[in-house]
Amino acid sequence: MADMADLNPIPDLLAGLYDGLAGDQSGEVATYIPQLSHADPSWFGIALATLDGHVYPAGAAERTFTIQSVSKPFVYALALAGCGLDAVIERIGVEPSGDAFNAIRLEPQTGRPPNPMVNAGAILTTSLVSWERIRAGLGAFAGRDLDIDLAVYDSERLTGDRNRAIAYLMRNAGSLTTDVDETLDVYFRQCAILVTARDLAVMAATLANAGVNPITGVAVVGPDVAADVLTVMATCGMYDFAGEWLLRVGLPAKSGVSGGIAAALPGQFGIGLFSPPLDARGNSVRAIAACEELSARFGLHLMRSPDSSVPSLADVVTARTVRSSAARTRTERDILTRSGGAITIRGILGDLGFATAERLVREIAEHLDGVSWIVLDLDRVGRLHPVAERLLDTLASRLADAGVTTVVTDRSSRGLLSYPDRQFVTRDEALTWCEDALLRRVTGTH
Amino acid sequence: MADMADLNPIPDLLAGLYDGLAGDQSGEVATYIPQLSHADPSWFGIALATLDGHVYPAGAAERTFTIQSVSKPFVYALALAGCGLDAVIERIGVEPSGDAFNAIRLEPQTGRPPNPMVNAGAILTTSLVSWERIRAGLGAFAGRDLDIDLAVYDSERLTGDRNRAIAYLMRNAGSLTTDVDETLDVYFRQCAILVTARDLAVMAATLANAGVNPITGVAVVGPDVAADVLTVMATCGMYDFAGEWLLRVGLPAKSGVSGGIAAALPGQFGIGLFSPPLDARGNSVRAIAACEELSARFGLHLMRSPDSSVPSLADVVTARTVRSSAARTRTERDILTRSGGAITIRGILGDLGFATAERLVREIAEHLDGVSWIVLDLDRVGRLHPVAERLLDTLASRLADAGVTTVVTDRSSRGLLSYPDRQFVTRDEALTWCEDALLRRVTGTH
Amino acid sequence: MADMADLNPIPDLLAGLYDGLAGDQSGEVATYIPQLSHADPSWFGIALATLDGHVYPAGAAERTFTIQSVSKPFVYALALAGCGLDAVIERIGVEPSGDAFNAIRLEPQTGRPPNPMVNAGAILTTSLVSWERIRAGLGAFAGRDLDIDLAVYDSERLTGDRNRAIAYLMRNAGSLTTDVDETLDVYFRQCAILVTARDLAVMAATLANAGVNPITGVAVVGPDVAADVLTVMATCGMYDFAGEWLLRVGLPAKSGVSGGIAAALPGQFGIGLFSPPLDARGNSVRAIAACEELSARFGLHLMRSPDSSVPSLADVVTARTVRSSAARTRTERDILTRSGGAITIRGILGDLGFATAERLVREIAEHLDGVSWIVLDLDRVGRLHPVAERLLDTLASRLADAGVTTVVTDRSSRGLLSYPDRQFVTRDEALTWCEDALLRRVTGTH
Amino acid sequence: MADMADLNPIPDLLAGLYDGLAGDQSGEVATYIPQLSHADPSWFGIALATLDGHVYPAGAAERTFTIQSVSKPFVYALALAGCGLDAVIERIGVEPSGDAFNAIRLEPQTGRPPNPMVNAGAILTTSLVSWERIRAGLGAFAGRDLDIDLAVYDSERLTGDRNRAIAYLMRNAGSLTTDVDETLDVYFRQCAILVTARDLAVMAATLANAGVNPITGVAVVGPDVAADVLTVMATCGMYDFAGEWLLRVGLPAKSGVSGGIAAALPGQFGIGLFSPPLDARGNSVRAIAACEELSARFGLHLMRSPDSSVPSLADVVTARTVRSSAARTRTERDILTRSGGAITIRGILGDLGFATAERLVREIAEHLDGVSWIVLDLDRVGRLHPVAERLLDTLASRLADAGVTTVVTDRSSRGLLSYPDRQFVTRDEALTWCEDALLRRVTGTH
Repeated sequence: MADMADLNPIPDLLAGLYDGLAGDQSGEVATYIPQLSHADPSWFGIALATLDGHVYPAGAAERTFTIQSVSKPFVYALALAGCGLDAVIERIGVEPSGDAFNAIRLEPQTGRPPNPMVNAGAILTTSLVSWERIRAGLGAFAGRDLDIDLAVYDSERLTGDRNRAIAYLMRNAGSLTTDVDETLDVYFRQCAILVTARDLAVMAATLANAGVNPITGVAVVGPDVAADVLTVMATCGMYDFAGEWLLRVGLPAKSGVSGGIAAALPGQFGIGLFSPPLDARGNSVRAIAACEELSARFGLHLMRSPDSSVPSLADVVTARTVRSSAARTRTERDILTRSGGAITIRGILGDLGFATAERLVREIAEHLDGVSWIVLDLDRVGRLHPVAERLLDTLASRLADAGVTTVVTDRSSRGLLSYPDRQFVTRDEALTWCEDALLRRVTGTH
Repeated sequence: MADMADLNPIPDLLAGLYDGLAGDQSGEVATYIPQLSHADPSWFGIALATLDGHVYPAGAAERTFTIQSVSKPFVYALALAGCGLDAVIERIGVEPSGDAFNAIRLEPQTGRPPNPMVNAGAILTTSLVSWERIRAGLGAFAGRDLDIDLAVYDSERLTGDRNRAIAYLMRNAGSLTTDVDETLDVYFRQCAILVTARDLAVMAATLANAGVNPITGVAVVGPDVAADVLTVMATCGMYDFAGEWLLRVGLPAKSGVSGGIAAALPGQFGIGLFSPPLDARGNSVRAIAACEELSARFGLHLMRSPDSSVPSLADVVTARTVRSSAARTRTERDILTRSGGAITIRGILGDLGFATAERLVREIAEHLDGVSWIVLDLDRVGRLHPVAERLLDTLASRLADAGVTTVVTDRSSRGLLSYPDRQFVTRDEALTWCEDALLRRVTGTH
Repeated sequence: MADMADLNPIPDLLAGLYDGLAGDQSGEVATYIPQLSHADPSWFGIALATLDGHVYPAGAAERTFTIQSVSKPFVYALALAGCGLDAVIERIGVEPSGDAFNAIRLEPQTGRPPNPMVNAGAILTTSLVSWERIRAGLGAFAGRDLDIDLAVYDSERLTGDRNRAIAYLMRNAGSLTTDVDETLDVYFRQCAILVTARDLAVMAATLANAGVNPITGVAVVGPDVAADVLTVMATCGMYDFAGEWLLRVGLPAKSGVSGGIAAALPGQFGIGLFSPPLDARGNSVRAIAACEELSARFGLHLMRSPDSSVPSLADVVTARTVRSSAARTRTERDILTRSGGAITIRGILGDLGFATAERLVREIAEHLDGVSWIVLDLDRVGRLHPVAERLLDTLASRLADAGVTTVVTDRSSRGLLSYPDRQFVTRDEALTWCEDALLRRVTGTH
Repeated sequence: MADMADLNPIPDLLAGLYDGLAGDQSGEVATYIPQLSHADPSWFGIALATLDGHVYPAGAAERTFTIQSVSKPFVYALALAGCGLDAVIERIGVEPSGDAFNAIRLEPQTGRPPNPMVNAGAILTTSLVSWERIRAGLGAFAGRDLDIDLAVYDSERLTGDRNRAIAYLMRNAGSLTTDVDETLDVYFRQCAILVTARDLAVMAATLANAGVNPITGVAVVGPDVAADVLTVMATCGMYDFAGEWLLRVGLPAKSGVSGGIAAALPGQFGIGLFSPPLDARGNSVRAIAACEELSARFGLHLMRSPDSSVPSLADVVTARTVRSSAARTRTERDILTRSGGAITIRGILGDLGFATAERLVREIAEHLDGVSWIVLDLDRVGRLHPVAERLLDTLASRLADAGVTTVVTDRSSRGLLSYPDRQFVTRDEALTWCEDALLRRVTGTH
């Protein structure tokens, strides 16, 4: 019998990805500070973190490097969590600018930076969060305490003149209100935090998991903050490559000058990559290529609808109106015989979101002729989105007004629906419930 | 008994949205051509089109207006379909620029416009498609023949000096290679095409439906083109409001100066809105507000993971390893008794995408000790994404190599998986199949 | 005896300049239209026109070429003459922009081009003047009828997309109010006017000569217009080389893509140059070099004060208070003896501008003790500027109030001063006048 | 008899200017630092300094204020004097940019600021000069030791964030190579130097006087530096008003935020003005108005040719060919009788620059028939420019080759011409000299 670990194809897929790209020699290691220039161009690590906390590594997934600009979305998340979206958006825009990372375009008059992913916006973001909170927060995203590379930090301080310029411009415009040296000190520390590709994968997975670290279970930020950060990453995360990145890869992501990229697919996973050689836009060559290949091979793209091999909705929503002659079980038959009416059983397969719920609701409403009992069979539903829940709630209460009794089946009485007086039952219980109700009606008891 | 049509809450929701916003008096009707300035500021229409072809209207959803810039993504789709993404991207970038719709920023040297949603890019896009194709194509998106408002067309021609300037700049730079007057003539015609909010909803739904018009069933463009267009709408569709729009609304969208907006959620629906008064950025005030409210109320946001009321993955993938002592049915017990082994039944609820498939594969691989038969119970799976299918395929073939027999249950023998030698069975058949196989093994027959 | 013509060193100087630069092979002939690309890179002409109408030629000073952008200041002069400075400045700014010739930067909101020397401003300028006026006006500047190169005109029309773009932008902004095609037609004609280096020299000399063509004597434009045009040439004439040009050469000038340059020193001369090879900024390499050398060798620079070998002002204003004992002539002695007083004779050498007049006035006022007659000896004054005249006028009238008699000597009774009751006399007459006045006083007659 | 001081009209003119503008209430006092905001809006001082060191004051010409940006051209002069033009121009451009004073546009790649009059260029200029040199140098320009306003200096340091930003940008680009804090400390000190309108007038007059302080006689910088600084002031001194300023006023000038302006007319005078209320561009309202009025009233404009009331050149160059029959004196007659030939006496009136010298040379060369002696009568020449001197030199040496004897008259044997063997004589001496020469020829002696 084979090694059971080999049964999982994911490690092989990542290893294949790694092998295919490891030989790519293109790109240049960043040299603006000596510490970065010492990076070995052959370093290459990939990690994929699932939302239940499993991490698949490939290559040098455990090699540490300074996080640099990949810190930006996570510190932005902390700022949003601390100050609220409206307060932060008043200070830092969310518009992609098509500019390079170190652009100095600020909003006229206000000095508001265009978005938190360019240096100006990132520095202003940092000014909204304390160093202690940044260090602890990034550690919470990664699920472990993170160290700082003091040599890189020192070098950044020595060579950070452009960032000083940007900070002073914002201070002059009144958009930055904290001390420039102190704020940049925190910013340089933040950029010098040491992470691994594995860390970036977990950090991204935390965003993909509505802000909950999938390993530690800690809710680092709330689900709204996670969604907001992913959105800003989608439009602004890859600088002047943002548009083409989203087109080709379709994942919210952020890159850094040390060669790291963090990317996430909401509700699915997070990935972390690391390879020092950069392309002309300052994005890691191998990391970009790996993401493109992952996305293309697996269709992991925000905008990709499932292709035609996927069953259409017509197969997903099932309907059966049971009359006594066609009762499947004795209980059904008994019920139907006694009621003299019909019970519609509407089953739903798969996740129940807006579109599926809308279809369910519409079909029930359109085909209710003579039906007095409806069984909503949610036994085979995976995830029930709030919008679907609300639509079903409204429908059930309207059905009640119309004299139709609704019974919701639920394989484990999970309480999927929240309207106060509804009944959560198993499928068998649903039928029993119907029987009892009918008996009560027939016998005149209540 | 109530009017059955009233049972569906969606029309009421849209009507409520309409009523809440109809009284909003803010914004200014565009006046740059007389025809637009004649618009009644109170006009307001909403339509939502589902992917199975149902359209919910509210307000003046059937009032015609000129499509203006909302034509851009659809003509871009036609250009992509005709020329291919790489050829088009070489001519027109896909980077959000943070600029207003009529910006004249072109790429230095090449004169390449930044993206197809600003006028420069849209004009260049138009130059790649014939007028016949545009008119037929937009009609195919809408599912009906579309007329042109000749008075608006004439006015646009008279006042189109800025567009002439942009076109001549591109021609001078060599990026536009067609005749300026002829190209602009087509562009002005394209902008003067008459649509309704209902049309925009269907057009957007076609993009959300992988390029297939949900009413006519016509595949207007391929699924890749639809995804590419939605991506570009997500980053560039709302001009210098694109970032905040995606943050607040979370839907790929495109607006026009006549007051229209088309928006889509991939795989879910399309919406069309129309209300002439515009805000300072040129977006319809009521249409924006309606989209924000729709998104907020229903959580219709690309980046919003289901919130905490949604069952976690732990509830979605179920596992049961059945030993004879715990057999649920006689058949099971018989099988297990005879085999002296164990059968793992892995059930999956909901849609099966990358993340769920990964979890399933991983858990099977990790808990295979002593198991010789695996039943993959897909009976309650809604949609099966190709990536999940490939992962399960690979797993099954590796399990076969390891001497483990895999049986896939499928409620209707849909043939979800594609590996050649697998068996598609119902749940009961699966157990019967196992029994037979065991009997053969026990009795030495094959 | 040598040929008398050889006595004049100027032809030799220009010939030396020509010889020194003729071998310079650097620069590229403009190729954007075929007609320009056919130019022979070795063509090189220089001409210097004096304000009394003499022209010194060197090299191919009579070879015709299209005037191109060198037409801009002259058409601007016609616009100023026709509309007045304030009306023109409201439509076209006068600010140097540091931009290249074909920049499209317009003033936000108004669409006003920055200055009349970039294409945008030049096109708007052309829209203010009729073609007939332009052709006649440029001919008047040159002192002869000018032809048009129709092949170049046709080519410009075919390739003028950038200018069309600029024109449409201005029309869209409302700054250009005429028909684009008609205006550009005139503009392209204007650029295709055929001139020689000699023509450019005469045209520039006309500006330097307060608007009067030094050969024909025709006042093409008024002195204010000529001064305004020279000022705008000084700051904006050489595009993004304007500042360094003024620093190194110090002459208001305008260059064109066909290799022409016209430059002028107000009140001194005009020069015209022609050599097709251009530098990266689009200025003729040899023409630039020739101007730099001319300026450096002769100190022909607006800002160059005479150097230290020039006599200081102290030598220029002379003062002599004559008492009888020191009388230089018998007449003087007689006068002084009889008056018992003193006569101050203030002589002035050179041109009498503000600074010299101020000094004269001040010294007279400060040293008037006991003086009852003042002779202002203007016998050796060259040019008398109006400001000096006004200052002397005021002084004389104040002296009269103070009981001091002023007599102005003037070698030819030119009537330099304009105050009503003054006397214009020769030097001898002045003394005679004084004598008579004294006699009358002494004898009591009046 | 009136007070003799009242005879000079200049004080009254300045007083009239002062009175006419003192009541103007428009403009706003700068408030970006408290010290400037305390300025009394009614303060208004004017001073005019002549090149022989006289200063005319009007209003608060002795009130001190901080020099601010008016320091820029003078520190630039010190940098040019210390490093040479080419070295400085490599670091700081000289192109007008049409930008506001605090623009941050730097040359791409090099980070070179566009010119020394915007803050970026001024800071870089300051980095080239030591504080001791700046303080001493500005004192030398003003002719007295200058103090610093320490409160303003402190405030500038506190609020100088934009300048810090600019400096760090330049340092980042490699154009600024000194320490930012130290350089800005000097820059803030330089801006806080206390001056009066009188000081500014003397400083400007020093530039107008070829770098020599007209009061102290100290050569603060050389004549080339003075000319270069005046040129840069002409194109860049008034920020985005530079073009219109030069058009309307026609004087190189520099303004500052405290309300000062220094302006100069090369070879004529310097003026200093002070009035705190500023217009929207940051230029003193009253100072601008005063300069415009001064220029308009007196025609003090670089480009204004003398108007038509000025004698034409035809009157300026005189020619008389004396033959014996027309001899004016006995000596002349004797000479001419003996020589049997003719003597041409060419007199010149006024200043002798390029244009006049050219005319003189040309006329002599053209009318030499039969002439064997030429007397160049420079007795009535004011200033003799080097270019004229060189032309006459060349002519004389060519005449000698042609057998013509040249005699130069000079009222005071100033030695105007420099060719080795020429004779400097008075007019009478010239004739005597001719007589002797003739006698020697006639008698055969040498």
